[in-house]
Amino acid sequence: MKILVINGPNLNMLGKRKSDIYGVLSYEDLVEIIKFRAQDLGIECEFFQSNYEGELIDRIHGLDFDALVINPGALTHYSYALRDALEIFTGPKVEVHISNIHAREAFRNRSVVSSVCTGTIAGLGFTGYLLAIEFLAGQR
Amino acid sequence: MKILVINGPNLNMLGKRKSDIYGVLSYEDLVEIIKFRAQDLGIECEFFQSNYEGELIDRIHGLDFDALVINPGALTHYSYALRDALEIFTGPKVEVHISNIHAREAFRNRSVVSSVCTGTIAGLGFTGYLLAIEFLAGQR
Amino acid sequence: MKILVINGPNLNMLGKRKSDIYGVLSYEDLVEIIKFRAQDLGIECEFFQSNYEGELIDRIHGLDFDALVINPGALTHYSYALRDALEIFTGPKVEVHISNIHAREAFRNRSVVSSVCTGTIAGLGFTGYLLAIEFLAGQR
Amino acid sequence: MKILVINGPNLNMLGKRKSDIYGVLSYEDLVEIIKFRAQDLGIECEFFQSNYEGELIDRIHGLDFDALVINPGALTHYSYALRDALEIFTGPKVEVHISNIHAREAFRNRSVVSSVCTGTIAGLGFTGYLLAIEFLAGQR
Amino acid sequence: MKILVINGPNLNMLGKRKSDIYGVLSYEDLVEIIKFRAQDLGIECEFFQSNYEGELIDRIHGLDFDALVINPGALTHYSYALRDALEIFTGPKVEVHISNIHAREAFRNRSVVSSVCTGTIAGLGFTGYLLAIEFLAGQR
Amino acid sequence: MKILVINGPNLNMLGKRKSDIYGVLSYEDLVEIIKFRAQDLGIECEFFQSNYEGELIDRIHGLDFDALVINPGALTHYSYALRDALEIFTGPKVEVHISNIHAREAFRNRSVVSSVCTGTIAGLGFTGYLLAIEFLAGQR
Amino acid sequence: MKILVINGPNLNMLGKRKSDIYGVLSYEDLVEIIKFRAQDLGIECEFFQSNYEGELIDRIHGLDFDALVINPGALTHYSYALRDALEIFTGPKVEVHISNIHAREAFRNRSVVSSVCTGTIAGLGFTGYLLAIEFLAGQR
Amino acid sequence: MKILVINGPNLNMLGKRKSDIYGVLSYEDLVEIIKFRAQDLGIECEFFQSNYEGELIDRIHGLDFDALVINPGALTHYSYALRDALEIFTGPKVEVHISNIHAREAFRNRSVVSSVCTGTIAGLGFTGYLLAIEFLAGQR
Amino acid sequence: MKILVINGPNLNMLGKRKSDIYGVLSYEDLVEIIKFRAQDLGIECEFFQSNYEGELIDRIHGLDFDALVINPGALTHYSYALRDALEIFTGPKVEVHISNIHAREAFRNRSVVSSVCTGTIAGLGFTGYLLAIEFLAGQR
Amino acid sequence: MKILVINGPNLNMLGKRKSDIYGVLSYEDLVEIIKFRAQDLGIECEFFQSNYEGELIDRIHGLDFDALVINPGALTHYSYALRDALEIFTGPKVEVHISNIHAREAFRNRSVVSSVCTGTIAGLGFTGYLLAIEFLAGQR
Amino acid sequence: MKILVINGPNLNMLGKRKSDIYGVLSYEDLVEIIKFRAQDLGIECEFFQSNYEGELIDRIHGLDFDALVINPGALTHYSYALRDALEIFTGPKVEVHISNIHAREAFRNRSVVSSVCTGTIAGLGFTGYLLAIEFLAGQR
Amino acid sequence: MKILVINGPNLNMLGKRKSDIYGVLSYEDLVEIIKFRAQDLGIECEFFQSNYEGELIDRIHGLDFDALVINPGALTHYSYALRDALEIFTGPKVEVHISNIHAREAFRNRSVVSSVCTGTIAGLGFTGYLLAIEFLAGQR
Repeated sequence: MKILVINGPNLNMLGKRKSDIYGVLSYEDLVEIIKFRAQDLGIECEFFQSNYEGELIDRIHGLDFDALVINPGALTHYSYALRDALEIFTGPKVEVHISNIHAREAFRNRSVVSSVCTGTIAGLGFTGYLLAIEFLAGQR
Repeated sequence: MKILVINGPNLNMLGKRKSDIYGVLSYEDLVEIIKFRAQDLGIECEFFQSNYEGELIDRIHGLDFDALVINPGALTHYSYALRDALEIFTGPKVEVHISNIHAREAFRNRSVVSSVCTGTIAGLGFTGYLLAIEFLAGQR
Repeated sequence: MKILVINGPNLNMLGKRKSDIYGVLSYEDLVEIIKFRAQDLGIECEFFQSNYEGELIDRIHGLDFDALVINPGALTHYSYALRDALEIFTGPKVEVHISNIHAREAFRNRSVVSSVCTGTIAGLGFTGYLLAIEFLAGQR
Repeated sequence: MKILVINGPNLNMLGKRKSDIYGVLSYEDLVEIIKFRAQDLGIECEFFQSNYEGELIDRIHGLDFDALVINPGALTHYSYALRDALEIFTGPKVEVHISNIHAREAFRNRSVVSSVCTGTIAGLGFTGYLLAIEFLAGQR
Repeated sequence: MKILVINGPNLNMLGKRKSDIYGVLSYEDLVEIIKFRAQDLGIECEFFQSNYEGELIDRIHGLDFDALVINPGALTHYSYALRDALEIFTGPKVEVHISNIHAREAFRNRSVVSSVCTGTIAGLGFTGYLLAIEFLAGQR
Repeated sequence: MKILVINGPNLNMLGKRKSDIYGVLSYEDLVEIIKFRAQDLGIECEFFQSNYEGELIDRIHGLDFDALVINPGALTHYSYALRDALEIFTGPKVEVHISNIHAREAFRNRSVVSSVCTGTIAGLGFTGYLLAIEFLAGQR
Repeated sequence: MKILVINGPNLNMLGKRKSDIYGVLSYEDLVEIIKFRAQDLGIECEFFQSNYEGELIDRIHGLDFDALVINPGALTHYSYALRDALEIFTGPKVEVHISNIHAREAFRNRSVVSSVCTGTIAGLGFTGYLLAIEFLAGQR
Repeated sequence: MKILVINGPNLNMLGKRKSDIYGVLSYEDLVEIIKFRAQDLGIECEFFQSNYEGELIDRIHGLDFDALVINPGALTHYSYALRDALEIFTGPKVEVHISNIHAREAFRNRSVVSSVCTGTIAGLGFTGYLLAIEFLAGQR
Repeated sequence: MKILVINGPNLNMLGKRKSDIYGVLSYEDLVEIIKFRAQDLGIECEFFQSNYEGELIDRIHGLDFDALVINPGALTHYSYALRDALEIFTGPKVEVHISNIHAREAFRNRSVVSSVCTGTIAGLGFTGYLLAIEFLAGQR
Repeated sequence: MKILVINGPNLNMLGKRKSDIYGVLSYEDLVEIIKFRAQDLGIECEFFQSNYEGELIDRIHGLDFDALVINPGALTHYSYALRDALEIFTGPKVEVHISNIHAREAFRNRSVVSSVCTGTIAGLGFTGYLLAIEFLAGQR
Repeated sequence: MKILVINGPNLNMLGKRKSDIYGVLSYEDLVEIIKFRAQDLGIECEFFQSNYEGELIDRIHGLDFDALVINPGALTHYSYALRDALEIFTGPKVEVHISNIHAREAFRNRSVVSSVCTGTIAGLGFTGYLLAIEFLAGQR
Repeated sequence: MKILVINGPNLNMLGKRKSDIYGVLSYEDLVEIIKFRAQDLGIECEFFQSNYEGELIDRIHGLDFDALVINPGALTHYSYALRDALEIFTGPKVEVHISNIHAREAFRNRSVVSSVCTGTIAGLGFTGYLLAIEFLAGQR
């Protein structure tokens, strides 16, 4: 089983941005932590991060994976194009947010991609990604 | 560590309601599945289900637990009283929804309790509860 | 055939409240009037009134009836939990309102339960219950 | 007692339109069924159907009836002119909808005529008309 | 100078409807009163009343007048078709309402035709028509 | 009979502002024109203009007049204080606007004072004031 | 193949109204132009224009055609009755607007009939009708 | 004179919740403080607190008091059922809020019960209850 | 301790305006009643009333008082300038309304000053001012 | 004459996505079909597809074409940047949508680019592109 | 060149109000700082501050200046009367806000005067005034 | 001190687009003009323009500058991803718009980036950039 883990705009700056909300660990740390768990679960993980909506869509179009974890960053709130790309992939996919988007600014309350994902995990920090992986592993 | 697992209105009817959305397993099955995982994690779980907003609030007021998992059922969408009760408990708490509330009727898109929970898991079926337990276990 | 006739909050106070809108007859009178007609139609009627959302939901969960008449009182306008309970019962069910809820305060214009009922009768006074019974009798 | 039974736009096409929602019986069948019940109740019924808002208003202006049953079709949702015509007739009048307008498209949720009618019956099929007649008969 | 005085739906029922709002005089009385004033001003008046939006539009399309007075009745609030017809006539035109539409139901607050008329007179009773005639006479 | 003619903010600048909308005549011209007509009708007119909401309210509190004509200028759209002052005077009062406020910016479409006036005249230029005077004269 | 080409309110005034938006050609010219193209395509066209919503609905109820082209004029924006009539005809149907309704007044941005048509062509002038005919010809 | 002092959901947790907003005194302290003042005023006070909407409604239905003080807690913002119960009691009744609900979250700005109470006191801490008692004492 | 009691637009007309809502006593009576109570409490009261937003702001800028009672009249609903002035005074301040603003017109439901006051008292008539004074006295 | 045919995000996946809505033919098929028709009409067509908003804007900035056909995909609903790019090109341009965007999710009802295009064709499948080409050919 | 620098309600209290937002310098300091810069630029500056909307309007009506800098204080958010006064002056005018009104309360996000000013500077502290002066100097 | 001057989508087309709004000078001219002023102020300026949201975000992530000037073009109105990138840079940053975005289409009235910038300058043409530079120079 191969899981693609996609992170959208600004997530490459983890650890450098609003550490009270996102913590002090970097994107590279995140990748390491997920890889470690994936190995445990006997799952292959590929990682992809981009600040370009178009690049994220292109990557999803590859369709060379069995399941998807995506944190679309702020694209969550307006990118219908990303939403349509996600809809094309019909396998299991989990939307993840590090912070509790419901306890922050009003514009973060609305996700335009949730309705085409299997489910959503928000507010559980890096652990959210691990739980998503674990859920997808259980879908094998 | 003791986790209180609260289920709100209509969740006692699991397996008897809209099985295309909620699956065929019953509330009792759910309890068994969670207990099993909790045992693995060395965690004590107490279960509480009620169709009364007031009874749910009373139970939370007990404050005799270290962490909380709550699926408020349809109270999610309007019970500010439940929200205020949850706010009193300042420990880690996870809101869980079996179905993807963002892919259903419009009124299910809004949760009035999310902003006072640590985080939310939605759309991952019964597994959502297990992931919540696991997250909370990691908060010890 | 057994019909459950459910009345929600404040309907126990019929005759004691805003008699220009609800008339002078009491809840007990209402029960008698319905029973009388039901007898005529050869139908068994059970009556249930509560001011507790939870108690109403519990009663519906009984599922020990063939059809349902419900006047949810003011819960009509916000109780998604009651709505979900009604959705579980897949038999014929009629929503009844004594007064014309469309000719009163704005908040009474919206019913969150209508979409899961077979139909609605509003503004026809106590007669509305009788017509509902008659309709359900015809569904045998 | 004379009751005018008015049907608005597209109701002449009953049985030819969306039979999953409106059933397979025709407008003529509807008239026959109502007549039959009216005879039983010793009531005279006159029927009027038009796809013209103006013709419906003209007919109501006749004021040569004791009570009114009206299914305004889609005019329900915007015809304030029809609303004003109905307001002129101060006798008992019942708004009827064959389908449950609250369980369909959003635009069907709002009726601009309800507030000037005695009451409303929706979602009970052709039976709705019969119940309306019965209610009005009771107003003698 | 020839002025066309158009009255929309339900205005033929003047004196028979809500006399607290519209007064006790009839449409025929209104016509007489306007004619009388028009004679004084040396102006020819033609009168037209219809409950059909289509007939009102057809009449305006005649374009055989120098100025227009229109009370569109309840069509005021939604008939964009009437609005477009009025826009075709580029001469002076005054919208008249007998009652103060701003002091009644919310739906009467919005006029979709005002923006294509020269001006509006509302709430001044039958006198409103006379003032409109007088204004138009001054446009010669 | 004494009529108070009140003009609100910026109307002292008539003729100096947006002459395509308000014309080239000045406030002084307006006063002269109204006086002339009032004389004809045997009516006493007093004029008052202020750019201060408070001064307008104070003047209305005088209650030393039989009828009122008011063009509140842009206060029309938000001054609930002016509205309350107008409500205190229970005699006939007409709201006048020189331009057609319904054919301009969206914020000009809403008047917060209309509901406490007898009626409104808009879009008929200076003539609007004359018609208002004439109407009030007829109320003697 | 027979195509019914329906034009709603005010389209009979083409060439006489807002020529900057609708051009200088008349409704008769439009009919001729369409007929010419239809002949080329070996298609029979029938034309119908009315300013009456009711007459348009009646004509559609005829159901004596294989395909439909409709420009509902301003009824586009509120006539749910026309919408329901169009829904009855289950063959291919194209909504046409001469002007770009999205680049004009806000009220023209919303079409209540689009959702029951096969598709829409707007802003392409008279050519829009020809393209609609051509599309429908291809559906044979 | 007997005053019923009702407190809704979560107010039993006073002193245990958000002490920056609600202070450090407990519900029991509140009762003592009010009793003390009531004694001074020669008034009998009965106290009732519940987290159940239904129980609050049942208590109000008792109608065995001359005046009412109610702090509905978060039910303030959505419980139309509580509102209807309050409407039944036609004596003087004061809505009290300890905190300034207008200076907190947006959802707390709207009270659905205010319109059926005599008046409201908010933001004055425990003192608000005392002032309410005092006001009611003056109504004897 | 010195308390400034400010009354906004139209409150000088108390007793002359809508006596069903505001009572028959005058502003002067109100001042006397408050003075009387203040004397009892050993508090100095200064009174200020103006129909000018600017004058009210100027007075507050004086900052020569220890506490503030303000009834902003209709400015309550839109005067952000008054709100900002109130924010400058950081001592205790109570907003008072004689009538129950929540049971009247919709525009009276919203106060733009509440969020910068300590608290609000509404609907308790003149007594509201006395309770405010009493509360402020307790803040010494 | 040279026409640029632009397709936005996800249109490269035609035939691989929601074939019930978009059909089974691929983007390459679409290009071939358009080329074929263009050849017939003696028109040169250049094709451009990108999932990057920026790349689409860059291409339009080329301004090396006489006319434009654009299907912006989901960017239709929010890309004001694309809108501004389209506004720069002042030649004829047609917005095309394969599916009837008015009969799908609510978010697809609004196009932010329509107002700067000559016109729009929606719901006519691949044929929509051909009709657009034909219209533009007629603009030579 | 003469520039009028207008400051609206509460700006006379600079340095005495919310110094975290507005800084510690006073209105007099602001005047001095601007004068100093104006002298450098060879520009005459006149200063005007008032808490009265009417006085601000009167001052603008003077029209005895070549350019205008205005910080309307909280009038920014609702004073259409001030907006209309500003519209009368057709020379260059700059709206200035000391704080970033977009990063504060929601009501501060909307300016009703921006659309009639040449431009806006917000959030740059006292420097904003200096930049405005400099811009206007460049307009000579 | 090094200032990064960022321009978003379509600003590379300055001088080629809507010259009535944006003027006739090109992006290159803009760069020259800013450079000239920067030199005067002894500041280093780096320029960056892109039509890609992703590229703009990447550039900001460089964080190799002391201050920022950004004109996000139409991304201003929806790019929450750009907003989040700007929030990462905690130094002084000024949002600049050449035209007065408040006097144009409604969608241009809302900026999603203003709240994370130090301030905003709009409507002052190219000069706006120079003033921004000057402000930032003063922050050294």
